[in-house]
Amino acid sequence: MAKKLMEAGLQYQLFQGDTAPANGVNDQKQSVAGGIAVDGFPGVKKSNHVRESCKLVSREFQQEDTVVDVQGVKIGGLHLGIMAGPCAVESQEQLLEAARAVKRAGAQFLRGGAYKPRSSPYSFQGLEEKGLNMLAKAREQTGLKIVTEVMDAAAVDIVSQYADVLQIGTRNMQNFHLLKTVGKTDKPVLLKRGLAATISEWLDAAEYIMCEGNYNVILCERGIRTFETYTRNTLDLGAVVAVKRLSHLPVIVDPSHGTGRWKMVRPMACAAIAAGADGLIIEVHPNPDVALCDGKQSLTPANFSLLMTEVGAIAAIRGKTILYREK
Amino acid sequence: MAKKLMEAGLQYQLFQGDTAPANGVNDQKQSVAGGIAVDGFPGVKKSNHVRESCKLVSREFQQEDTVVDVQGVKIGGLHLGIMAGPCAVESQEQLLEAARAVKRAGAQFLRGGAYKPRSSPYSFQGLEEKGLNMLAKAREQTGLKIVTEVMDAAAVDIVSQYADVLQIGTRNMQNFHLLKTVGKTDKPVLLKRGLAATISEWLDAAEYIMCEGNYNVILCERGIRTFETYTRNTLDLGAVVAVKRLSHLPVIVDPSHGTGRWKMVRPMACAAIAAGADGLIIEVHPNPDVALCDGKQSLTPANFSLLMTEVGAIAAIRGKTILYREK
Amino acid sequence: MAKKLMEAGLQYQLFQGDTAPANGVNDQKQSVAGGIAVDGFPGVKKSNHVRESCKLVSREFQQEDTVVDVQGVKIGGLHLGIMAGPCAVESQEQLLEAARAVKRAGAQFLRGGAYKPRSSPYSFQGLEEKGLNMLAKAREQTGLKIVTEVMDAAAVDIVSQYADVLQIGTRNMQNFHLLKTVGKTDKPVLLKRGLAATISEWLDAAEYIMCEGNYNVILCERGIRTFETYTRNTLDLGAVVAVKRLSHLPVIVDPSHGTGRWKMVRPMACAAIAAGADGLIIEVHPNPDVALCDGKQSLTPANFSLLMTEVGAIAAIRGKTILYREK
Amino acid sequence: MAKKLMEAGLQYQLFQGDTAPANGVNDQKQSVAGGIAVDGFPGVKKSNHVRESCKLVSREFQQEDTVVDVQGVKIGGLHLGIMAGPCAVESQEQLLEAARAVKRAGAQFLRGGAYKPRSSPYSFQGLEEKGLNMLAKAREQTGLKIVTEVMDAAAVDIVSQYADVLQIGTRNMQNFHLLKTVGKTDKPVLLKRGLAATISEWLDAAEYIMCEGNYNVILCERGIRTFETYTRNTLDLGAVVAVKRLSHLPVIVDPSHGTGRWKMVRPMACAAIAAGADGLIIEVHPNPDVALCDGKQSLTPANFSLLMTEVGAIAAIRGKTILYREK
Repeated sequence: MAKKLMEAGLQYQLFQGDTAPANGVNDQKQSVAGGIAVDGFPGVKKSNHVRESCKLVSREFQQEDTVVDVQGVKIGGLHLGIMAGPCAVESQEQLLEAARAVKRAGAQFLRGGAYKPRSSPYSFQGLEEKGLNMLAKAREQTGLKIVTEVMDAAAVDIVSQYADVLQIGTRNMQNFHLLKTVGKTDKPVLLKRGLAATISEWLDAAEYIMCEGNYNVILCERGIRTFETYTRNTLDLGAVVAVKRLSHLPVIVDPSHGTGRWKMVRPMACAAIAAGADGLIIEVHPNPDVALCDGKQSLTPANFSLLMTEVGAIAAIRGKTILYREK
Repeated sequence: MAKKLMEAGLQYQLFQGDTAPANGVNDQKQSVAGGIAVDGFPGVKKSNHVRESCKLVSREFQQEDTVVDVQGVKIGGLHLGIMAGPCAVESQEQLLEAARAVKRAGAQFLRGGAYKPRSSPYSFQGLEEKGLNMLAKAREQTGLKIVTEVMDAAAVDIVSQYADVLQIGTRNMQNFHLLKTVGKTDKPVLLKRGLAATISEWLDAAEYIMCEGNYNVILCERGIRTFETYTRNTLDLGAVVAVKRLSHLPVIVDPSHGTGRWKMVRPMACAAIAAGADGLIIEVHPNPDVALCDGKQSLTPANFSLLMTEVGAIAAIRGKTILYREK
Repeated sequence: MAKKLMEAGLQYQLFQGDTAPANGVNDQKQSVAGGIAVDGFPGVKKSNHVRESCKLVSREFQQEDTVVDVQGVKIGGLHLGIMAGPCAVESQEQLLEAARAVKRAGAQFLRGGAYKPRSSPYSFQGLEEKGLNMLAKAREQTGLKIVTEVMDAAAVDIVSQYADVLQIGTRNMQNFHLLKTVGKTDKPVLLKRGLAATISEWLDAAEYIMCEGNYNVILCERGIRTFETYTRNTLDLGAVVAVKRLSHLPVIVDPSHGTGRWKMVRPMACAAIAAGADGLIIEVHPNPDVALCDGKQSLTPANFSLLMTEVGAIAAIRGKTILYREK
Repeated sequence: MAKKLMEAGLQYQLFQGDTAPANGVNDQKQSVAGGIAVDGFPGVKKSNHVRESCKLVSREFQQEDTVVDVQGVKIGGLHLGIMAGPCAVESQEQLLEAARAVKRAGAQFLRGGAYKPRSSPYSFQGLEEKGLNMLAKAREQTGLKIVTEVMDAAAVDIVSQYADVLQIGTRNMQNFHLLKTVGKTDKPVLLKRGLAATISEWLDAAEYIMCEGNYNVILCERGIRTFETYTRNTLDLGAVVAVKRLSHLPVIVDPSHGTGRWKMVRPMACAAIAAGADGLIIEVHPNPDVALCDGKQSLTPANFSLLMTEVGAIAAIRGKTILYREK
């Protein structure tokens, strides 16, 4: 077998024990990915396809843009996806007010954290399932799709019952067990870039999800950590351009976390779309001054509306649409 | 109540819903930490003590060094802890050979990954429970304590059955559910610094563990991500000095990951001890050239032995001992 | 005097010796900047105005946008400035070909290095004065204004004889003697951000130029150094937005150095203008494959032309014009 | 000729014009460096030797450690060099007090800035030549060698009249004109690493000095800029180890700027020597609380004395001596 593999230009590695890492390639895509059906060899438990071009995430593997369909709302290709809402779900009233406002301005998704990752254990940790319930109610009343974070593999089931899109936060980009678990669901996944993750590591994290069978991955650039302290993070729009070249997956941008300052959100949202991003995720709060978290980077509904107008004009130049149409 | 709190110089915040974040301070330390027994107020479900000096992790909270006792082997204060072994458990033979070698040279702990966090899903992911078994056998034969990584909250139980110290890897430093879960065990925890975590975030991560009741936390500086590419990471020994001032917890250093080059491990290990570190964790492999992971940064047993001699001399100047003594 | 200063809310510091640091505020702006004419006090040799709002560079000091007028071509306010040309002047033919192409596409400035800062002493260092001559000839033939780098205070005189705009390179952003020297000329200065300079340090560097009397400073974001290695630098468009808020000076963007990859230049140029940049500086080479430096990030004339079309559309949305009009 | 070069395995490049970049290799070392006397070929004006092993700075070019002799005081090989003194020269009294104290504790060099690079033009810029005079007087009275910064090529002459070692500051590491100018003197040069310079760029900067004929270069690690804000910079001791492998030049460490906090200076100085550094440069001020700059990172004489005791013990283990002996 070794000889055959080498003739086919493949590397191989023998493992002791009966460990069975995730299959690099699932059935239906196997012929494309592997070029040679190694999994059929006697004694082969798994095949690791290490050529860059074989990665499911890569543009070489799939040339056309992936369009993720979230219950009829599309992101990718010509379709911009706009997600907006408060950092954290604080109450039903706050959430509904935000939801109606962002819907009015043209958003298709309501964001809002029910489980909040916080650096300190003494910060507000979210309303948890109560918050998920409030999100579901907001969906009922507005028709907006729900995107919310899941922080642990054990919570994937419960969050999946409420959410339309599962968000993996920046701190969990390399929580591999969580990636594999959401990879086994059929929910679209919003994968935020780790705050010090290279583009290559970010795409590898998406590969963890995809190689479990879930191809509906939306990447999200949200700023990286650098020496600059004026902004909360350094929004790396070059990464958006790079990812659009390296991968077929849609990429959206979070200028709220990417800057940490609401006055910078609008121009950076415009820049993101001009760079070719497939959408935005924006923090909007009815009353940012009293927000339980991230008030400084939250837009008022009025400012969000202004943002949408500007973004729409730039999207048009890029040949993209943000009009929300149900199937 | 609000008035009373304000008189006591405390901030407070009211949450909607019946969410109950972890108590900042557990019972036996409450009087020291809180200064005022707010938890007894009617309607109070939790108290969040936000003063820096009140954090369990802080030097202000506890002035004397914490000495973590791992089944009779101590780390902290005057006791250096030396952990060594292969990056990954590959086979029983490899592991035993490494274990005997590092024990001979003076290590008290055997390190070795059974679950391996890897950037790509197609890299070797570890032997999992089979690997844990091999570690246990190595402990039986050498008396070394076992330190091994747990990557997910769901695996804490199984890993705890085998390990003497639970390692939280750099990618999981802010996997808060995992932190809380190990915080509920009675196993000492080795908490690696995130690759782009500030010192403050690192200490907050330790606080997550401690506020669940587990005070046996050992911090581990393992290099941060910077622009420099000659080394795998930039080992931040200044962070060791800083943490020794800010916190009472022991801090050890991983010069293997911190440099990524075996030829740099010995001098950086010496530097770490000179800076005041409470121990080291070093990758040692019987035959680094064929290691399944991190061969480039692994020492041979002979070089590890040389390292221990040099480190011992510097430790003596610092008034610390690395002699291994069972209780 | 001390009492009077304190009444005016000013800090002061007495220096021993007769040192006389640069005056913080020059005559004609003194009343605005200082609020109190401290320089007139007996024994006062210099006044240091440390309030942020007093800095000449600050938006608080001057609310309206500075428009720099380069021999009739304006940058700032509603006027976009487009600079393009080869990284290095290589020959008269190469330069003229590039100049004609970028002019045709709408650029108003020809860029080209006669003195090249290179990390290694064994790399091509530029044609020096011969190169300056070639630039002057290209100006004669095309009418383009010339922007070229001056690397040392001693060369300011000679470069000023040829250039319309003096470029301070990223490595020299804190070469204070050079800053002061160009501050004493009446040539507009293009001040690139240092590769690890904070926004605050960048503005302070501009202040060095301005406090010598030269207010014609154009800032240039060209990417910062981060951990990401896919791109040559990380283009920090957030800094553009920040600087437009903090300062009245025009800011342009260099997506060529900011990405290091020609395929990324066009979308990042669009993003820069969408973010609110006042112009661009782009590397264009008639034949990038044989360029003596930075060929990988240089556009062909055809691609530059395409870039100008897209940028023009986005500029229109931002209410800015890139039409080139001589006075 | 091209054929002959290619047979010799050399790359070559033809330049238009009569530009003559610095010769990569000077006469006396030509045979070693070049392997082939290309400069003798007809029409050859300069030869650029680009093989890493040919760089004058490289360990491959010279295997034994360079020992820099400063008027009889040696740095490199077995000789530790200790430089100490105030950040800035403030007055003759302050300087003499510092000088006597650091000499008593064992330093061989007095540091002190007469020209101060400051981010803001409104900060104290140094006493300039008056400060140089004070340094010379301190040398007369103590016998300490003088190390002081030169910030501009035009000032090299004047500073050389007073200094024993010319310091190139971190902001000027790639001020190539300055590097070439000090390369033409016979004064030893202390070359600080740029705050975001890679190790490779740092060595290339040293090469700029050496290829002008001055081989007496002492490198100085002083911390790099990272995301961490607790320390002023991140002291990269791994770079010391790396440079000792890559180059034969001595490397010293500046823990004062490397940490920005005086309480961290002593342990980091010990760590530096343990890592293999050839010396230290430390800020010492008779009264840090009133220092005109960098008081927070300055040691009192008493603390410096304590540092010297600890450093001496660690140096002994490394087989190095810090005893000061005149020739």
